[in-house]
Amino acid sequence: METSDIRFPTSMSLDGSDAMNLDPDYSAAYVRIRTDDPDELEGHGLVFTIGRGNEVQIAAIRAVEHHLLGRDVEELLSDMGATSQLMMTDSQLRWLGPEKGVMHMAIGAVVNALWDLRAKREGKPLWRVLSDLSPEEIVKLVDFRYLGNALTRDEALEILHRALPYRQSRVNELLTAGYPAYTTTPGWLGYDDAKLDRLAREAVAAGFRQIKLKVGASVDDDIRRLGIARAAVGSEVKIAIDANQRWEPQEAIDWVGRLAEFDIAWVEEPTSPDDVIGHAQIAEAISPIPVASGEHIHNRVMFKQFLQAQSLSVLQLDATRVGGVNENVAILLLAAKFGLRVRPHAGGVGLCELVQHLSMFDLVSVSGSSESRMIEYVDHLHEHFVDPVVIKDGQYIAPMMPGSGAEMYAHSRIAFSV
Amino acid sequence: METSDIRFPTSMSLDGSDAMNLDPDYSAAYVRIRTDDPDELEGHGLVFTIGRGNEVQIAAIRAVEHHLLGRDVEELLSDMGATSQLMMTDSQLRWLGPEKGVMHMAIGAVVNALWDLRAKREGKPLWRVLSDLSPEEIVKLVDFRYLGNALTRDEALEILHRALPYRQSRVNELLTAGYPAYTTTPGWLGYDDAKLDRLAREAVAAGFRQIKLKVGASVDDDIRRLGIARAAVGSEVKIAIDANQRWEPQEAIDWVGRLAEFDIAWVEEPTSPDDVIGHAQIAEAISPIPVASGEHIHNRVMFKQFLQAQSLSVLQLDATRVGGVNENVAILLLAAKFGLRVRPHAGGVGLCELVQHLSMFDLVSVSGSSESRMIEYVDHLHEHFVDPVVIKDGQYIAPMMPGSGAEMYAHSRIAFSV
Repeated sequence: METSDIRFPTSMSLDGSDAMNLDPDYSAAYVRIRTDDPDELEGHGLVFTIGRGNEVQIAAIRAVEHHLLGRDVEELLSDMGATSQLMMTDSQLRWLGPEKGVMHMAIGAVVNALWDLRAKREGKPLWRVLSDLSPEEIVKLVDFRYLGNALTRDEALEILHRALPYRQSRVNELLTAGYPAYTTTPGWLGYDDAKLDRLAREAVAAGFRQIKLKVGASVDDDIRRLGIARAAVGSEVKIAIDANQRWEPQEAIDWVGRLAEFDIAWVEEPTSPDDVIGHAQIAEAISPIPVASGEHIHNRVMFKQFLQAQSLSVLQLDATRVGGVNENVAILLLAAKFGLRVRPHAGGVGLCELVQHLSMFDLVSVSGSSESRMIEYVDHLHEHFVDPVVIKDGQYIAPMMPGSGAEMYAHSRIAFSV
Repeated sequence: METSDIRFPTSMSLDGSDAMNLDPDYSAAYVRIRTDDPDELEGHGLVFTIGRGNEVQIAAIRAVEHHLLGRDVEELLSDMGATSQLMMTDSQLRWLGPEKGVMHMAIGAVVNALWDLRAKREGKPLWRVLSDLSPEEIVKLVDFRYLGNALTRDEALEILHRALPYRQSRVNELLTAGYPAYTTTPGWLGYDDAKLDRLAREAVAAGFRQIKLKVGASVDDDIRRLGIARAAVGSEVKIAIDANQRWEPQEAIDWVGRLAEFDIAWVEEPTSPDDVIGHAQIAEAISPIPVASGEHIHNRVMFKQFLQAQSLSVLQLDATRVGGVNENVAILLLAAKFGLRVRPHAGGVGLCELVQHLSMFDLVSVSGSSESRMIEYVDHLHEHFVDPVVIKDGQYIAPMMPGSGAEMYAHSRIAFSV
């Protein structure tokens, strides 16, 4: 296992700036897993961070290395449920979470790196590897512990079996039409009005049917900026807003009330990502405006509760916040059970590249639908990836290169390593 | 700032073993803060871990050092609310939580080390430093963000003002009678029946009015062990049980039903510490047996919800799981608002030494009562501390030495550093 502490100086241009994150330096705690197989294939994974502390994330990744060193790669990759649990149930490491924060994300990156390796060895993109698994193989990936009062193994199997007859037609749909995207590129809080106006118009011209604006620092600024954005995109294109955890529940309700005239597609992260009850209060009060969250919801137990309490109506899967592909399969199954719209978070380094595989797997083998679903898109830092996302007419084009999308060019890794 | 990775090989004797933590090596990610003041006083703090990953916790502590280096110590210590926020609101570090896991505990250790330094400079034990603050100074320590729908600053002030006239009489009560303790020493899962029987009898002889048993691995073993313990302690002494997150909600309900005949004082950590809703289901079903949790509840927003949802009736404060003294003051205020019994977790290294200060502050200046409250006691590793806890007739004796209790002897730090 090799790790790299990779940091991009994005704070210089205020890309990624919002009401809570004023000056992020988009970073990756990056891991490469190598074997002694003559095929020389490597598994790559990462945790997205925003700068300081990336070295802590690296230390956490290193702390799981001993579970893999010297093990047989075929054995590890052929039972990814067991392999994931091997790391997740290390009781000494578990104390550092449990199943949350730095340690949990580290295990997620290693799990994802192993999936990357498996996909490369199978010569398929990850979405295809996952979609080709049988329902029985898929539920074997999932840790159902703590999910029993919301989703059982049998219910998950039923969902997967329901999708089975339509898999091929959905693959065809995906290969023909792609997967819907929306863009956050115009909306960073640090951009001035002229840049917002220009980028919003460019987004529409590029075929996007939705943009997203960061809000929450000043309600007067938000009203002005939403006015500019609405004028730029017209009445047909949707506008979501994102407060990045800035508000108290009551404050969120009041603030959103003042912005409602702009026809808001959803309100993202209105308050603490831990606050299931607070989100439920907001969701009830601002209905029918949907509440969205997910990029900081730390594991399947939290997602379960957000669904049980009707705290969300848009679920924003994140590829590197939870315990990797396996836990995200659990979350997709929970979303399918509760009938929730999944619209992944992807504002970061490599998050677009990674998360598209999960949404495409969801379309083919879980929910069976991309209707009213979409993946976030932000046009930063894709040039560093070997298989960068391709967006055409506001749609993600399905990746065909073997792997998970995580692999960064060696020259980029080296140039931006600290 | 100096850090030490301290690990005690407790797994060799199965001290601390339970249904989820089979072989803990009680460890401390330890921090010392020094100044250039000729008084040469140092602030000591720690995060309790159970072995592997302690080095990750150290890396996280190092990541906040830059916020303190070169700063004026008087200025930092005189406004601990602002100093705590300085670290908590570092947006790049916050991404690694937010406010949870490795990064949050690291900030907590540094906050606690600064409180240790402040108490030493004032020449008082920490409980006394906190208890002597005015209500207005106490609320300045608290970050009320995200608490608005449960506890406002004004409500907190009212609680503190209500306690004000009785502070001196409660100090006198504390100095005379001490603070009630219960013991977990007999109940580790790795101990055989004879050792359980012997230690349970010793606990009663030593004056303890409650013991705690680890359960959850096998219901038949639990029934047998509870029978031994009940026979050993008699009908007057209470027995709590601790499942350490082993169950699903329904499993907890069924399992506890089979143990109820033994007159259970409380059921601790029946399921995932993230599962507010699951705990509420259990609490309702097993009532009147109380549900307890806290050692893994990761911040004030989670505690708030456990109280709002009536998921707990025993709140187990932990000195090193959350963001330090400041966040624990918030949690004590929440408990007082909701009328909950606080019975801190202290099974670990230094946790008894640290958490007693919080309970004693609570008695004097917040809840104003030690009735039906008690602090966990475990008789491990106290010999390494400069001011070890003193238990007499089942009561914690109030510490009088200046500081927070965190300071370990240099020879112990050195001998057990890796």
